[in-house]
Amino acid sequence: MDADLGSPRELTWLQRRRALYQPELPPCLQGTRVRVKFGDSTTSIDPKCADIVAQAFPHTFGQKLVHFLEPNTMVSDAQVIEERPPIRVGVLFSGRQSPGGHNVIWGTYDAMKAQSPHNVLLGFVGGTEGLFAKKTLEITDGVFSSYKNQGGFDLLGRTVDQIRTTEQVNAAMSTCCDLSLDGLIIIGGVTSNSDAAQLAETFVKHNCKTKVIGVPVTLSGDLKNQFVETTVGFDTVCKVDSQLISNVCLDAVSAGKYYYFVRLMGGKASHVAFECALQSHPNMVILGEEVALSKLTLMEIINKICDGVQARAAQGKYHGVLLIPEGLIESIPEMYALIQEINNLHSNNVPEDEIPSQLSPWAAALFKFLPQFIRRELVLHQESDNSAQLSQIDTEQLLAHLVEAEMNNRTKEGNYKGRKFSSVCHFFGSQARGSLPSNFDCNYAYAMMSVRRHLRGPGAVPIGRPVIHPSPIDLKAESYATPGGIQFEGPGTDTKPITLTMEGQDYLGDIEILQDYLEKLRTILKPGCSREVLKAAISSMASVNDVLKVMSAPLNAELPLYHFN
Amino acid sequence: MDADLGSPRELTWLQRRRALYQPELPPCLQGTRVRVKFGDSTTSIDPKCADIVAQAFPHTFGQKLVHFLEPNTMVSDAQVIEERPPIRVGVLFSGRQSPGGHNVIWGTYDAMKAQSPHNVLLGFVGGTEGLFAKKTLEITDGVFSSYKNQGGFDLLGRTVDQIRTTEQVNAAMSTCCDLSLDGLIIIGGVTSNSDAAQLAETFVKHNCKTKVIGVPVTLSGDLKNQFVETTVGFDTVCKVDSQLISNVCLDAVSAGKYYYFVRLMGGKASHVAFECALQSHPNMVILGEEVALSKLTLMEIINKICDGVQARAAQGKYHGVLLIPEGLIESIPEMYALIQEINNLHSNNVPEDEIPSQLSPWAAALFKFLPQFIRRELVLHQESDNSAQLSQIDTEQLLAHLVEAEMNNRTKEGNYKGRKFSSVCHFFGSQARGSLPSNFDCNYAYAMMSVRRHLRGPGAVPIGRPVIHPSPIDLKAESYATPGGIQFEGPGTDTKPITLTMEGQDYLGDIEILQDYLEKLRTILKPGCSREVLKAAISSMASVNDVLKVMSAPLNAELPLYHFN
Repeated sequence: MDADLGSPRELTWLQRRRALYQPELPPCLQGTRVRVKFGDSTTSIDPKCADIVAQAFPHTFGQKLVHFLEPNTMVSDAQVIEERPPIRVGVLFSGRQSPGGHNVIWGTYDAMKAQSPHNVLLGFVGGTEGLFAKKTLEITDGVFSSYKNQGGFDLLGRTVDQIRTTEQVNAAMSTCCDLSLDGLIIIGGVTSNSDAAQLAETFVKHNCKTKVIGVPVTLSGDLKNQFVETTVGFDTVCKVDSQLISNVCLDAVSAGKYYYFVRLMGGKASHVAFECALQSHPNMVILGEEVALSKLTLMEIINKICDGVQARAAQGKYHGVLLIPEGLIESIPEMYALIQEINNLHSNNVPEDEIPSQLSPWAAALFKFLPQFIRRELVLHQESDNSAQLSQIDTEQLLAHLVEAEMNNRTKEGNYKGRKFSSVCHFFGSQARGSLPSNFDCNYAYAMMSVRRHLRGPGAVPIGRPVIHPSPIDLKAESYATPGGIQFEGPGTDTKPITLTMEGQDYLGDIEILQDYLEKLRTILKPGCSREVLKAAISSMASVNDVLKVMSAPLNAELPLYHFN
Repeated sequence: MDADLGSPRELTWLQRRRALYQPELPPCLQGTRVRVKFGDSTTSIDPKCADIVAQAFPHTFGQKLVHFLEPNTMVSDAQVIEERPPIRVGVLFSGRQSPGGHNVIWGTYDAMKAQSPHNVLLGFVGGTEGLFAKKTLEITDGVFSSYKNQGGFDLLGRTVDQIRTTEQVNAAMSTCCDLSLDGLIIIGGVTSNSDAAQLAETFVKHNCKTKVIGVPVTLSGDLKNQFVETTVGFDTVCKVDSQLISNVCLDAVSAGKYYYFVRLMGGKASHVAFECALQSHPNMVILGEEVALSKLTLMEIINKICDGVQARAAQGKYHGVLLIPEGLIESIPEMYALIQEINNLHSNNVPEDEIPSQLSPWAAALFKFLPQFIRRELVLHQESDNSAQLSQIDTEQLLAHLVEAEMNNRTKEGNYKGRKFSSVCHFFGSQARGSLPSNFDCNYAYAMMSVRRHLRGPGAVPIGRPVIHPSPIDLKAESYATPGGIQFEGPGTDTKPITLTMEGQDYLGDIEILQDYLEKLRTILKPGCSREVLKAAISSMASVNDVLKVMSAPLNAELPLYHFN
């Protein structure tokens, strides 16, 4: 294990200042007593998959939702959690680091110590490898003092981020039993939360007492759903990326001669690119979900970009900024098919240099069309979740390369008469995810002691269902926006991601309002009510039913890319 | 010209907040009266070049230094600048955008209007092209309101950044005469300030009344000397870059499996890399000046990096962060020679695809040794100052590529037994230089109404003499430092670059102290003083003389690279 992990270190003035920040807890988690209400059973995002998921997780699927109650709420059947014997909990980082990760540990520690000074929180040093090897560090005030509200995962570090093979699962179970853990908290993204769900099921099946808790800490924002507002780190990363994008925008308009192709880290979903577009107003953002939905081919995307470049040239503008999500490459249908073929060859242990010759004729033709540097990157080793190493595929350079070729074509054919097209490429990855967390992420991570695990089984819908809200007003703004860097003092320190403010927040509250209405209807529509009232009610209910049926059908509308402005 | 330039625009809350910041003026520039004292004549940095520079600039070389006096200083022969007729001044951006550029215009505007409301400041829209085409925009409060304390050069924009050919110089002169300008302010870096010096000389020679003023606004910090503390933008860019580097450092230590090769924009000198190393404490910084001084070859640098990687592996550490200045490639002797050959072929209009075949056998061998992507970049088009397009040569990828090859070699030969070496490359360019300027840059740019032009003629020493102060204490710190982003509110908003705090600041003050001593000596050592006093004085003076002779000789000591820690 790395000697640099978990050691106390010297902080800069800003870090020291940040360490003094006390995260806020929601009222329901303040104090030493927590009041909860059990709700409906959990289900899968797509109801059609519920059966399949239930079969895969027979012991853990369908547990009751837990609703934390504000201290003053009066609930007749509220269950009071009394004092209990000291508990022992283990915690580890598993997955790409994301700002706020340390605060999950801090919040857990404070809450456990508030319950009983005898509660013990053990950190696993070196992530999953530390878990398998039983390498622990007891979390204390002293250990934690220089990691409060700080970025990175360096208090404990991370390694292979996988608990999936029988050997790995058994090692994890044996550690949890040997250390007599009541709980195991896994801090990570999609893959790690899927592993956490599987581990929980296995533990129950084998009567291991350790409860497994997955905490969605990933910059990509792709684990959000009705119960999880966003993932820890998303806000910070979007703020840092937006600062950098707006700097690039200012640079672009100042020099007036380059197109900037900016690729943003964020996994398969385009949440980061979308949020950053709302914050910084680039000229174009290409959302992977839209490309997949409209089945746009690579050359259709290139042509759309070129049309935009040409339209801007007609206005005398030779600069622009395009945002590209990391996962775009997998959203382009023919590229996805090619990557799948390569993945299959990898799974069959075909050596990297033989992959090109073993592709199907169709895939081989596409492969040959791609520039050399992309071909090399596509056949690289795979990440733990078996997808191509998205962060290592220079999609921004691929697009810039093809756009330049197409603009040269148009010039040759006399269709474009403007100046030569020039591009600059950027990838914003670790320079954003290592940032000091924003106030939002400090608070959110500190309070997020336990969230619903996201289930993923065979046939489950892709995790991180894209919830994309086109926002033409903001994206068609006249000029670039400059949100600046994260500010920790003065006004604006508590801003939230724009996408969050656009989405309905109180999901459970809305369900309650609806249930109130249904209750009222039941009271009115009892035998004895007038024929007219009944007729009106039937007509209205039929209409609601029709509307909901249409809305629940899959969306087929072709959404346009956000166009140049 | 671009329709996006100079237009009023909507500001974000942080930009609006920043626009309210009122830059501070030093006491000598406060009020409407300025008191100055004329000092010694200017000379060249290297006294040996003074004659050559004097010949190249017969009308402008050797003018008196102007010392601004604090309002209360009593000076017998102080010259009071009385009211004078309204003046007309033109201003343009020429060179890569740098944070604070707008404040130079704002400070000039406020100072001119404080003198007389009839003074007129004209901005040239589109940089040098606007100057040649007489395309102006009168600076008013209204025009400027949304550009105060903002980044970029987008109030006026920039274009080719060159005033050098006879045609260009004549066009500039004709514009200045036609618009009856008393002054022309050129905001830019090394190249533009060299052009400004040449233009000033030409104007005097042709009796053009326009005074040319070069303002050193460039992120690279390479125009600093005894009279110019630093360049405008250096502080901001170093702060943003340091924030990103420290984010990368946190990422590196958290994952513990990658080496990050980070290249920093900053021209030929390594000031940015050095300042960022002081702020963020990476594992290694390779300074171009040291490489040039020690005549390190490419493979010597690679071996030093590999030795560091190997030493860290022995401690169980498989991560690290290296900073690489943009100009490093030109500091490596054999690479410099190769680039020179390519430049010469370019000057002789050899087409790009024929360049490789026309290289000398030695250069061709080196060229062939380099990876394909670097070969392609080396033969690209040239920038205006005739050097290779530094920002487009992926030196960080070259080093990472060669280090990986060498580590694989060492593994094969059994000399290295650690894990496989993996790298991630970054280039921090426009994402830093488009930032909102720091308080330091806002103040510095606003107050910088007129500075000494830097002379550059045939035989002149390289502009931006590297002033590198090794600082082993900071670089050998135990852990990475996290300076965070630029903060605009709360403590720490007024921090200066660390390099500036390390250098003696009051150069002219020190010269005055020395001259006081010499004056005292003259008073004591007059005929009539005792034999003993005379003897002691001669002995002391001989000693001072010897010490200064040794200190003035060129430095031959071999400075080490900053080693891994």
